[in-house]
Amino acid sequence: MGIRQEWVEKAQNLIPELLETSVYPQEVIAVYPDEAAFQGWRKESLGSYERVLDQPFDSGESFILDFGDHQVGYVTFKIKATGSPQDAPLRLKLIFGEMPCEVAENFDDYNGWISRSWLQDEVINIDVLPCELKLPRRYAFRYLKVIVQETSPKFKAAFEKIYCTSVSSADPAGLRPLPDDLPKDVATMDRIGIKTLQDCMQTVFEDGPKRDRRLWIGDLRLQALANYVTFGNFDLVKRCLYLFAGMTLDKGEVGACLFENPEPHVDDTLLFDYSLFFVAVLHDYYAASGDKELLQELWPVALEQLDLAWLKVGADDLVTDDPSWWCFVDWHPELNKQASAQAIFIYCLKRAMVLARELSRKNEAELIVERIHLLSKAAVTQLYDPGHGFFISGRDRQISWASQIWMALAEVLEPKDNDALMNRLFEKPPAIRPNTPYMYHHLIEALLVTGNKEKALEQMRAYWGEMVKDGADTFWEVYNPQEKKLSPYGSNLINSYCHAWSCTPTYFIRKYFV
Amino acid sequence: MGIRQEWVEKAQNLIPELLETSVYPQEVIAVYPDEAAFQGWRKESLGSYERVLDQPFDSGESFILDFGDHQVGYVTFKIKATGSPQDAPLRLKLIFGEMPCEVAENFDDYNGWISRSWLQDEVINIDVLPCELKLPRRYAFRYLKVIVQETSPKFKAAFEKIYCTSVSSADPAGLRPLPDDLPKDVATMDRIGIKTLQDCMQTVFEDGPKRDRRLWIGDLRLQALANYVTFGNFDLVKRCLYLFAGMTLDKGEVGACLFENPEPHVDDTLLFDYSLFFVAVLHDYYAASGDKELLQELWPVALEQLDLAWLKVGADDLVTDDPSWWCFVDWHPELNKQASAQAIFIYCLKRAMVLARELSRKNEAELIVERIHLLSKAAVTQLYDPGHGFFISGRDRQISWASQIWMALAEVLEPKDNDALMNRLFEKPPAIRPNTPYMYHHLIEALLVTGNKEKALEQMRAYWGEMVKDGADTFWEVYNPQEKKLSPYGSNLINSYCHAWSCTPTYFIRKYFV
Repeated sequence: MGIRQEWVEKAQNLIPELLETSVYPQEVIAVYPDEAAFQGWRKESLGSYERVLDQPFDSGESFILDFGDHQVGYVTFKIKATGSPQDAPLRLKLIFGEMPCEVAENFDDYNGWISRSWLQDEVINIDVLPCELKLPRRYAFRYLKVIVQETSPKFKAAFEKIYCTSVSSADPAGLRPLPDDLPKDVATMDRIGIKTLQDCMQTVFEDGPKRDRRLWIGDLRLQALANYVTFGNFDLVKRCLYLFAGMTLDKGEVGACLFENPEPHVDDTLLFDYSLFFVAVLHDYYAASGDKELLQELWPVALEQLDLAWLKVGADDLVTDDPSWWCFVDWHPELNKQASAQAIFIYCLKRAMVLARELSRKNEAELIVERIHLLSKAAVTQLYDPGHGFFISGRDRQISWASQIWMALAEVLEPKDNDALMNRLFEKPPAIRPNTPYMYHHLIEALLVTGNKEKALEQMRAYWGEMVKDGADTFWEVYNPQEKKLSPYGSNLINSYCHAWSCTPTYFIRKYFV
Repeated sequence: MGIRQEWVEKAQNLIPELLETSVYPQEVIAVYPDEAAFQGWRKESLGSYERVLDQPFDSGESFILDFGDHQVGYVTFKIKATGSPQDAPLRLKLIFGEMPCEVAENFDDYNGWISRSWLQDEVINIDVLPCELKLPRRYAFRYLKVIVQETSPKFKAAFEKIYCTSVSSADPAGLRPLPDDLPKDVATMDRIGIKTLQDCMQTVFEDGPKRDRRLWIGDLRLQALANYVTFGNFDLVKRCLYLFAGMTLDKGEVGACLFENPEPHVDDTLLFDYSLFFVAVLHDYYAASGDKELLQELWPVALEQLDLAWLKVGADDLVTDDPSWWCFVDWHPELNKQASAQAIFIYCLKRAMVLARELSRKNEAELIVERIHLLSKAAVTQLYDPGHGFFISGRDRQISWASQIWMALAEVLEPKDNDALMNRLFEKPPAIRPNTPYMYHHLIEALLVTGNKEKALEQMRAYWGEMVKDGADTFWEVYNPQEKKLSPYGSNLINSYCHAWSCTPTYFIRKYFV
């Protein structure tokens, strides 16, 4: 792997201080099975949080706290014994949930295919009461189920205080208020998008504070866009760019994701689109900040991604299809990625062209323009199926929403054809639909790029607006209004319910609708 | 409660520094069901500890380490990820056991009547590898089962190092070696008794380092005796005397037990015999140390215990029987305590008499002598049944080993009658037998007091010697050679297998057999 220590060090010098807020629970709740409720669980208030304070809890007793909104932070308990002196350890089980399902279903029944260790539960044995228990791990949650597993016949447990020290590197001080005449539901989507971004903004732009808690470039790109119109924290984007530039994979590819601890290290996941998105993130950062110094410094890394991607282009000027997991695009088991990859390459080349010109890199700009031309021509001549009016992908000539959306974003067709393409998507919808907010983001962006502002808002309402109706405090990693327990991991318990790539309603609203 | 802050402070100034030793596991073992083995579990070596080091462990894999001997201390793990970077928390389950049954049976099936929280298991979620994990709680164990509950498809867990920082306030430097001609099994009982005492000697004399980890005066009395002939740590006894004297119950009774943390506090358990034993502990301490200053200072507390106990004596000069749990004597559900209580009172008065004379407290000494006389006369005339040749106890005239043993120790009969009483116990053994090493201690002491040295050794061999054959590393809280899963708590899993009141073979051997 390629380590450029000076960039990693610059990144480390940009580690932000986190803002801390003490947040107390709002209510005690119960959760009941209810077919009509989202994912089958309805919550009901049992009264204010104070009603569990200083009450004796015996072995086997439990309660669920509702903190009123999504939190990312560290939880502190003040616990004492009541009755006789504590003559045995107190054993607690704590379950943190972003959603009611997490505090209602049994984690032991989980059988998804990613690690159960992402489910947030702890068993804590406390030898000495009274105590102030500060849990060392960070949790992402709104609900906290406290199960008093073991006291003794002589004492019971009583809670004097339970609170969360919520953390974020996003400073809400700089947020501009929205105009008053904005529809209420739009303002709500904006607010929840901002909260989603805020809770993901830690010492990097995390993908999800519950899971995976790390820096993915696909999420970063969307977070950065939302950040520019909200918190405006340029340094955090800069830090993330330095991290990706400072730690590349074998041949110099920017990794798909990286870890901060115990020291920064890049993951071994390589994705064609994600490496290319380094260029897009740099482009967007420069457009927002005007920071030419960083552009100059990191331009070689951007250029290298384009050259490495070019190696995957065949003699037919098409990105070679691949049966392995080589390109992300969307969480969809049947989606063929070839056309999307072709379009994403063009999309990134076009942004690189802007940067090359800014830097007066004439030769490089010319090469980029030539490649845009070759790839675009191949897309139109070989991937566009005039009979269907859609782009096809892969040897099975798959027609998907993703391929059309990305081709629209890459603007390979003339504007009016591009517009027609997007309209056709809704008239003759292909079966392979967007599955994630990430893909929905690109759908909305494509509608806006092609001038379909009303349709874009309608789609935002149909997607993020539905999440709001289903109770979202922060926007979710996965959502399908038709299949509300959908999970790419085999269990909706482990989905992330505060997920970076879902935060962009605020970006659209503030960029296009204000 | 009566707090004398100056004594509590003096006690706190005597908190000893703990000696620390790093102890590494010896072997990896497996545990198999085996009817012929102690409590039904046989262990077998799978090789040296090093064989689990640096090996990748996947979800669901586990191993059991054998540290070679009983440990009391803090465990540290050095853990790393192998394979791809760690992309999910590592979830471990750790089970600490003093005995093979604890790492073989499922704690979730435990249904004893004291808190399951004494069973030593932890679930630990680790967000960042590599790490050095120092568990904050202290464990008492020889065996450690490590279950890797969750890794991820991308990484496995590997252990670079696992060790225990064992702690004790007992300094082995001052131990005198035994003569070479002592039988080997006797030397073994001495060694294990010392190890038991050592592992219970922490910042107080704990009853058991696994459970209850606190200062009981019944245990303290025996530990102090063993301590005087081994580690000779007078200050720790002094600290414990100050704690009991400094924090008494409502009417001034010395509590049965007390807790050190978060600050010293006495438990609300009041036991007739245990309050009285304050006198015996002070007597033994003075006899061993010659510390007249402390004797003088704490004498009023000792005297008060005698006066308070006298309130329980009826017009017939007998200690009033009581249906509640008022006097300990032994863990035996059917044992009537009246005769033992009468004898213990006499036993403690006799020791008080010695102290009163040392302090030239003439009036007090005279009153004590008078009470000894009254209680002894009542015991012989009202509790001794000449037909059976045994002391009876309670309204049902129960004949137990305990009543005879304590009457022998109280020396209410003439020496030759006392000797005959002890012999009769073995000739016509009553059904209510000793159940614990604590009661066995008093049996041995009674045999020695009555001059039955050979019988005493025979009984030590039949009891502690059998524990050795059954695999004891330290002597146990509960043992019945006829019923090896006996537990006063409804499950042998929760018995303490390193228990202070079981440490006295070293006291007998060093006092009577060297």
